[in-house]
Amino acid sequence: MDIRSIFSGIQKQVPDEILETILQADQFKIERIISRGHATAEGEWYDQDKNEWVIVLKGNAGLLFEGNDKAIIMKTGDYVNIPAHRKHRVEWTEPEEDTIWLAIHY
Amino acid sequence: MDIRSIFSGIQKQVPDEILETILQADQFKIERIISRGHATAEGEWYDQDKNEWVIVLKGNAGLLFEGNDKAIIMKTGDYVNIPAHRKHRVEWTEPEEDTIWLAIHY
Repeated sequence: MDIRSIFSGIQKQVPDEILETILQADQFKIERIISRGHATAEGEWYDQDKNEWVIVLKGNAGLLFEGNDKAIIMKTGDYVNIPAHRKHRVEWTEPEEDTIWLAIHY
Repeated sequence: MDIRSIFSGIQKQVPDEILETILQADQFKIERIISRGHATAEGEWYDQDKNEWVIVLKGNAGLLFEGNDKAIIMKTGDYVNIPAHRKHRVEWTEPEEDTIWLAIHY
């Protein structure tokens, strides 16, 4: 069996956020996302056709949902289920270390 | 939005392995499994009707696949995709700390 680590195979430089498909199934996709200081562009929102269950496996991030005043701080181990078309944006991620997310799009 | 931590809400005593459904979707289920020294019963194998993608989020475990001589050691961050009916067993988990698994059954 092929064992891998979610923490390995990360480039030293992460100029852009890295999205990798870990598993593609019929009805869902598991993705690893690596952020290093990245945030959603100013004034932009994610407005996704699919639901997304996401957990932070390393690092910290601020996640803002439309209609909220303040970003929610997501620490290592925190997860949230984001329904399709629930607008949200990543306000910030740790600038000096990787923030590693595991996302399930379904 | 409802943010939770995968590391919270764990009982102090874990006499039996704890399985909790985190998300139930149409085609898959996300489950949290907490082991503390637990192993699959002697001579028993998991023989599952569904595929299982599983990652260790805390702790360590030994996972044996039928036909292999030695258990594979799974550390924090390690993941594996186990096809349906691929027989396997948990040989051991850390006795003194929680091993927390996130499993996606699909």
